[in-house]
Parts: sequence; structure tokens; C-alpha cells
Amino acid sequence: MLPAFRRLMSTKIPTHFKSVVYSAESLEECTSVLSIQNYKPREDLEKSIVLRTLAFPINPSDINQLQGVYPSKPEKTLDYSTHEPAAIAGNEGVFEVMSVPKGETSLTAGDWVIPVQANNGTWSNYRVFSKATDLIKVNGLDLYSAATVSVNGCTAYQLVNNYVAWNKGSNEWLVQNAGTSSVSKIVTQIAKAKGIKTLSVIRDRDNFDSVAQVLQDKFGATKVISESQNNDKSFNKETLPKLLGPDARIRLALNSVGGKSSSAIARKLEKNALMLTYGGMSKQPVTLPTSLHIFKGLTSKGFWITENNKKNPQEKVENIKDFIQLYRDGKIISPKEEINTVDWDVHSTNDEQLLEMIKNAIDGTGKKQMVVLKW
Amino acid sequence: MLPAFRRLMSTKIPTHFKSVVYSAESLEECTSVLSIQNYKPREDLEKSIVLRTLAFPINPSDINQLQGVYPSKPEKTLDYSTHEPAAIAGNEGVFEVMSVPKGETSLTAGDWVIPVQANNGTWSNYRVFSKATDLIKVNGLDLYSAATVSVNGCTAYQLVNNYVAWNKGSNEWLVQNAGTSSVSKIVTQIAKAKGIKTLSVIRDRDNFDSVAQVLQDKFGATKVISESQNNDKSFNKETLPKLLGPDARIRLALNSVGGKSSSAIARKLEKNALMLTYGGMSKQPVTLPTSLHIFKGLTSKGFWITENNKKNPQEKVENIKDFIQLYRDGKIISPKEEINTVDWDVHSTNDEQLLEMIKNAIDGTGKKQMVVLKW
Repeated sequence: MLPAFRRLMSTKIPTHFKSVVYSAESLEECTSVLSIQNYKPREDLEKSIVLRTLAFPINPSDINQLQGVYPSKPEKTLDYSTHEPAAIAGNEGVFEVMSVPKGETSLTAGDWVIPVQANNGTWSNYRVFSKATDLIKVNGLDLYSAATVSVNGCTAYQLVNNYVAWNKGSNEWLVQNAGTSSVSKIVTQIAKAKGIKTLSVIRDRDNFDSVAQVLQDKFGATKVISESQNNDKSFNKETLPKLLGPDARIRLALNSVGGKSSSAIARKLEKNALMLTYGGMSKQPVTLPTSLHIFKGLTSKGFWITENNKKNPQEKVENIKDFIQLYRDGKIISPKEEINTVDWDVHSTNDEQLLEMIKNAIDGTGKKQMVVLKW
Repeated sequence: MLPAFRRLMSTKIPTHFKSVVYSAESLEECTSVLSIQNYKPREDLEKSIVLRTLAFPINPSDINQLQGVYPSKPEKTLDYSTHEPAAIAGNEGVFEVMSVPKGETSLTAGDWVIPVQANNGTWSNYRVFSKATDLIKVNGLDLYSAATVSVNGCTAYQLVNNYVAWNKGSNEWLVQNAGTSSVSKIVTQIAKAKGIKTLSVIRDRDNFDSVAQVLQDKFGATKVISESQNNDKSFNKETLPKLLGPDARIRLALNSVGGKSSSAIARKLEKNALMLTYGGMSKQPVTLPTSLHIFKGLTSKGFWITENNKKNPQEKVENIKDFIQLYRDGKIISPKEEINTVDWDVHSTNDEQLLEMIKNAIDGTGKKQMVVLKW
């Protein structure tokens, strides 16, 4: 059983909070900038929404912020007992509401919530918000889904739903590379639920068949091909049309790899279609044959969930609502298996141990790292 | 004095026309597919708009059609006394109206006209059109402007005017590579006339200063930089802002080169801006750093005048009208100097000579080649 939403016993709100903070950034040694701060919150807790943290993932964007190379940055303040202005690290996480101000009716103690915006600082045991509209209720999700819905979940949701007016039920496809990534797996599930077919490109590997089978059976990918097939002219000309069917239209390409993988998925698009780039795993730039732009009317754009949420926060609220419904209907499974969790026992872990744990999680490779707080 | 629009003496319409036609295409030897055909036009000339040709340029797209590698193709017919269905070569040219059907009031004998659409066949001494709406009057232009306004002129006009809602008079810029190309020179002139500033990137060369000076003095480029400056980080960070002024906004990038030149002009754009690709001289793909798409909201699209004219022919009519006005106002100069002309003396050039002349023009390098008919 996954730890899923349930209302917990009320706990006394302490006088001091504990947060993982940073003042300066460092590209070379980003973990060295972190420290644990115990401080008395400045807010009047009676008049605030007080949250305790249940879990937070460590995302690439969190690390890039510590390195000073991320274009979206939190405001730094002197609120956390530091000498230099500092910010709490982390942009994503799920919290439980402990108390709300008198008269606040949209939230109740025990609700699970996530912040609407990035840069609020999530690597902390408690957090305080002044407005309920800055939070979104996620009751109904399991812990891992709730802690990752803000970035991966919303990204996948908006990529599938916000750019193409799909004719549902007809033979319409999206193509995506990095088909085994967390976002791609959510894309396939949402697309399937919406009646859109997915062609996922994955790296060549010895166990290609079994990985492809899992993507199809468990995550709802319609078809899976390898990067070498993706790049193979004769495959694209002869085999692919049979795979997709004669009336197939590939209307959207989702690129999180770049380089020749991005060219190859762009080439598969029908005329006047769109490629959205939301990542660049290969570290190669997006590469587009000139003829695709001129003669096939290709449009290439970027996608950044942080910016979208800033521009249109209400959309995120709606997306999450729909996402939760899909989850409840069994259309989207928990990302639990893709996550490596470390426990922060809030009663027994000391500051030194906590800092070490966070640093190890930042350095962790392979699966996504998530810190789960044990209350 | 440039040969410019004037009504010529009426000439008798002959019973036979002469055209440069092709049936098959050949990538390797595209000139070998051409032949000269003398044929009796099928149309009832009394009920048609009969044109005689004044001049036609030889464009890269014309050659690509003969090579079979251009995505827009003319219909082939048996109208030209060939055994296999054939098409008249050429997509652009200026004609003089010789006669119009009774009741046709929008055109008069002596008008200079160009076809609205590509694929009408222009390498011919006479042509016949059935509808006046398939032609645009270009009275007022000189021969070289008239013969090239359809591709280069309209391309430049639409690139500048159709994609950005410019705040005229403020410090708003477009950046373009291939700054010495014919289209780029028209871009700078139209932009200047419209109050938009232009930053033109040109290849490094020994006489950079004098070439840049000509682009500024004669063609109205606001600033000119070299490709090595375009690609130089410290130039872009330190020198460029001084060149453009502190409140400069670079709102549009026009790319006809590709490769790292396209990355470098894209990097200069403000947030959420557009790069239009209309050519790929370097034969390198359009290359876009992932971060430009994701964090700077860059949109990359293609531009193809042939497709635009098909979708919106009326727009071309309006564009040409405005272009002619700019020309009359002295805002756009004739491309005469950029063109190498060869004369087709319709009275004395025999078929063999004509074919040889066309083949040589196709093989000609450097300046744009144009065939001028001597009547």
C-alpha cells in the first residue's frame, strides 16, 4: 500500500522551524552552500496557514538554483537567522495543513496541499502561507504523486492538452523522445486517457523489447521505437507508416533530448505542426533541418511549467483537479517505483545527519530522489 | 537610366509561342532536361489576356524544380507540342499586357504585370492568362525591381511587416544574417522606411568596413556586424548593448543561413520573440540552444513566400501596392547592380542559342542571373 492521503492526528505547532537554506550559489560545489537553520518564524501563526511537510523531491531545477544557473530564483531574506539574505531550497513538495486562520473556509486541517508557484522553498519541516489561493489541494493522491504533480504531472498534462485541438478517437498521434522518463510516462497515460496515441522513442538497449513492453502495458504507450529506428530513413519511410496506420497524423512532437533525436522526431510531424522542447538531456541543441521550417511549416517552441504557472496560475489549479480525477479513475499510476526515497525522521534526525542526507540525495544518480518526512 | 515602365507600341500577336520546357527532372544534370518548344497556344487569344515577357530571373527555386527537389511543382500538360507532359520552367518574371478580352477593364495593353502565384511558367516569349485576378499590375517599377518583386520583394516585405506588431519610432530592432543578400538589402530598406532598426550580420571579409558602409549608406542598415562578432560572447555582452542603445529591444530574427549563425542571432532576441527561417545558405540545420526555447520563450518558424501567396493571394496584391509606393518614394532602390543580365533578342536569337544562353545562366555564379527579352 502506498502512503496516500488521510487526515493525520493534529500535532502541536512548534515555536521553531527547521529549513535547508542557502545564501550564495556555487556552480562547482552546490551542496557546500547549504546549511540547516533553526529559526522562529516571523509570521503570526494564528493568522497564517501553517503547513507541515510530508515529502519533497529533489529536482534538477532545485540543483540548478543552488548552482546559480537557473533563470528562476527565489527571493532571499533575513527570515531564517542567517547573516546574509538566504532562501529555503526546493520548489516542489506536498504539505499537510496544520492550522488555518479563523474564517478560512477553503482549507481544513489535514488537507494535503502543494504551492501554486515555484520558489516558495520546500526543503523544510514546516512552512507558512498567508493566502489559501497560493495553495492547491491534492487530497486523493498518494504521497509520491502528490509530491511530484507540480512539476512532472503538470508538465505532462499541459504538453498533451494545451497545444493541439485533438480530434479525439481519430488516428492522431504525438511523438516523444526520452520515452522512459517520468514525464514521458505520464504523457502516455494522460494521452491514452484522452484518446490520443503516443509514439515513444527510447534509447537503444539490450532489453529493448521488455522495456518497450512495460511502457505499452503499464504506462499506455501506443507504440515504442528505438533511437536508431527514429533516425533511420528507410524505417521512417517503410516501416513507420505500417506501425501507425495509413491515416495517421502525427500532430505534436515533445522533445526533451535535443540533437539528432529532436530532428528525427520533428521530421515525423505532419505539415504545419508543432514541436515543444521542455528538456535537453543530450546537452545538444535543438537541431532542425531548414526545409522542415520552410517547406513543412514546422513551429518549434519551448515549454516551461514555471513560466506557465506564473502567467496562468488558475490553469494549474484546473489541471491538478483533472489530474487527480484521472488518478482516481486509475488512468495514472503512482511514480513510486521511479523514486528513491530517504527518510527524515523529524524526531530523531539531527541537523548534521539531515544535511548529510540532503547532500547525498543531491548527488544521487539514477532514480529521482525524494525526502519523506517521518512525523 | 534604368529601363522602367512605359507603354510600348502594340505588336502583332504571333500564331506560335516559344517556351523553355521540361518533362522529367534530373538532380545531377538539371540543364539537360530543358528544351525549346515552338507551339501554337491552345487558348482562344481573343478571349484571353495575352502577355509578352519582358524579363525573368533565374532563382534557386527554379533550378531546384528542374532538379526535382523542390516541394512546389507546376502541373505538366501536353500543351507545348511535347510527347511527354511538360511544364514551362520559371516561376517569376515581368510581362507586358498585349491584349485583353472585350469587357476586361482592370488591365490595359501596355500594363506591366507579374503572376500572383508561382508555377505559371515564365521562361517564354509569350504567356496567356484567363483571369486578370491572377496577375498583379506593377506599373511604376523599373524592369529589375518588377522582375524580382514577386520572390525577393514580397519575402522581404512580409518578413518585416507580418510577424511583429512594431512600436514604430521606439528603439526596436530586427537582426538578420546574410546581411549582403538581395532579400536582406530589401529588408533593411523597408525596415528603415517603417521606422524599424536593423542589425545586419555579414561574413567576415577583408573589406568589411567598406561593405558595411555601403549597407548602411545605400541600403539603410542601421548597424552591421561580422559573423565572428555575432558569435563572440564578450562582444554580445559588452559591445553590442552600446551599439544598440540601453533601451534596445531585438524583437525579430531573420535567418537565411542556419548553423551557428542562426543560434547567434536567436540569442540576441528579447524574451518571447520570434526567429523566422527563410533560407539555409550554410547547408547547416537551424540550431537552437535548448535554454532559448525553454527559458527565453523563443519561437522558431519558417517562411515560404510560395505557400503564403497560395494561402493569402490578396495579401500579395496589397504588399506589391505598398512596395511600389515605397519604390516611387525612393525608399527602395533597384536591385539592378546585383543582377547579371543576358539578352534574348526575340528577333534574331535562334532556339539553339536560346537554350545555350539559359543553360549558361543557370550555371552562372555570383550575381543573380536574369534574362531580358529584346523586342
